[in-house]
Amino acid sequence: MSCNSPKNSVDCGFDDLRPKIEQALQEACEFGSGCPPRLSEAMSYALLAPGKRLRPALVMMAAECCGGSVDAVIPAAVAVEMIHAYSLIHDDLPAMDDDDLRRGRPTVHIKFDEATAILAGDALLTEAFHHLSKHIKSPEKAIAAVRSLSVAAGASRLVGGQADDLAAERTPSLAEPNRPRIAGCQEETVLTDEPSVDPRLAHLESIHRRKTGALFSVSLDLGAILVDANSEQRDLLGSYAAAIGLAFQVVDDLLDYTAEASTLGKKTGKDAARGKLTYPGVMGLEQAQRKAQELIASARGGAEKFGDSGRRLRLLADFVLERSH
Amino acid sequence: MSCNSPKNSVDCGFDDLRPKIEQALQEACEFGSGCPPRLSEAMSYALLAPGKRLRPALVMMAAECCGGSVDAVIPAAVAVEMIHAYSLIHDDLPAMDDDDLRRGRPTVHIKFDEATAILAGDALLTEAFHHLSKHIKSPEKAIAAVRSLSVAAGASRLVGGQADDLAAERTPSLAEPNRPRIAGCQEETVLTDEPSVDPRLAHLESIHRRKTGALFSVSLDLGAILVDANSEQRDLLGSYAAAIGLAFQVVDDLLDYTAEASTLGKKTGKDAARGKLTYPGVMGLEQAQRKAQELIASARGGAEKFGDSGRRLRLLADFVLERSH
Repeated sequence: MSCNSPKNSVDCGFDDLRPKIEQALQEACEFGSGCPPRLSEAMSYALLAPGKRLRPALVMMAAECCGGSVDAVIPAAVAVEMIHAYSLIHDDLPAMDDDDLRRGRPTVHIKFDEATAILAGDALLTEAFHHLSKHIKSPEKAIAAVRSLSVAAGASRLVGGQADDLAAERTPSLAEPNRPRIAGCQEETVLTDEPSVDPRLAHLESIHRRKTGALFSVSLDLGAILVDANSEQRDLLGSYAAAIGLAFQVVDDLLDYTAEASTLGKKTGKDAARGKLTYPGVMGLEQAQRKAQELIASARGGAEKFGDSGRRLRLLADFVLERSH
Repeated sequence: MSCNSPKNSVDCGFDDLRPKIEQALQEACEFGSGCPPRLSEAMSYALLAPGKRLRPALVMMAAECCGGSVDAVIPAAVAVEMIHAYSLIHDDLPAMDDDDLRRGRPTVHIKFDEATAILAGDALLTEAFHHLSKHIKSPEKAIAAVRSLSVAAGASRLVGGQADDLAAERTPSLAEPNRPRIAGCQEETVLTDEPSVDPRLAHLESIHRRKTGALFSVSLDLGAILVDANSEQRDLLGSYAAAIGLAFQVVDDLLDYTAEASTLGKKTGKDAARGKLTYPGVMGLEQAQRKAQELIASARGGAEKFGDSGRRLRLLADFVLERSH
């Protein structure tokens, strides 16, 4: 099975890396003798949940395309998956997106309880930084990794993106185009009344560049940091990350719009039912598909600049687009 | 006013440090241009809430008594207060302790909303590690600080302590002494049926050594790390931290048991109403007072080994005990 997508047999570029990732995640599920068993179970349940492991793979792919070893960056791969797992636990909470099901399984607050879900998220977030500090031997690289990951996961990116996403969902006026200002949302999204720009689109992009894009970007950046990539390589990876991160979100919205629940293992059409801003909702289906294609073409172009060592990045770009078909 | 305790005019040992701490906390409330204003407000509301600033002061006191400068450790003082602020936000949530009032003000989920409270806590926790990585210039010291703080704030200490505290509160059988095993609580608390040991006391101590003690200990440890303290100094500080951390909790329980709501600015007698384990509840009032005295004597003894530079630590020990009178 390629990348957990039963309908898809295309090579996503990192199927061969996944056993290493799964093993490292398993080994990381030792949270210390003072950790209550129920908390530990909830943390493991979330971290080891079936998933694509896209972010850990990106860490390893970045290392490889900059001439380094995939094994050297495993601590960062684990840390970024811990951040991803924590963010899913908290996003699913009743006070947030209120989801009962994730990847076909009960969410953490349903399987355990709400307090345990909050605490398991907190502990995984903390453990991500502990993991970097414990397993990266060079203090310079370790602290650079902590800094990069803490910016990406912080108030102005991952958490800020989720806050604005919730605010948008709870502000019905956002469903109408060309509103000049979105109450409660970040300053950057002050909107013009320029008729050619749909303000919802600018806002949607601002949210997703932070909410999804931040972890995609930092995954590639961590891989680059740990193998001493040069600034040109880091810039190229940055552009690739921006394009693929947004493409991934557009495709996710397209899948929610079109796919059957049985294929995705989660409730679909839910975004629309909530009045949530989505790309097909704002742009229409065809325009959103075109946007995904353009973003993927841009990502692919960036990957090609790495020559042979960018092979996985190219395959991944193709795979993301393929998901939407 | 000494240490925010209007009834008390005793020098707590760090009144003169507080302006520096307040200024550093104010300056730390810049969370980046991508941070939504409402999230930023909630984070600042929590971080700048009136408080004793005991943990930041401990960082600075440790530095000073090991011969270093209090200014050199301000980034760690801020980071540990961020962790403390986050833990209070999450502990107060409806799914956790469900508190509406903290230090006389509405808690974050009351003042803002529950989703914002969860996210503000997440962002402050993340920002603590960012702050260390950005403001400590030596990579070796910065990563040692990240490691020490992430252990203290993690699954086996701060978060684990809170998880066991909640589990104990929700397990009515814990109110009865000499139960052989506490369901759902951490392995270390397997209890003997030795009649001379009240198992509730061992459990209470295990919780508080993690829930309150972890941040006290790490505060002193961070100060020591950043000024290159030797191992003897770190050991002495570790013993002091263990004693003062537990003493602080015993005194808190005593205050809840005896004080007037108007003095504390929060609901009192609430622990007992919840059936929560407390020191006076388990040991009786007099025994709990004696325990506080013994712990403070032990902390004071440790502080004296630092000679003149341990002056603040001695004053603080006296102050903690004084609160209970």
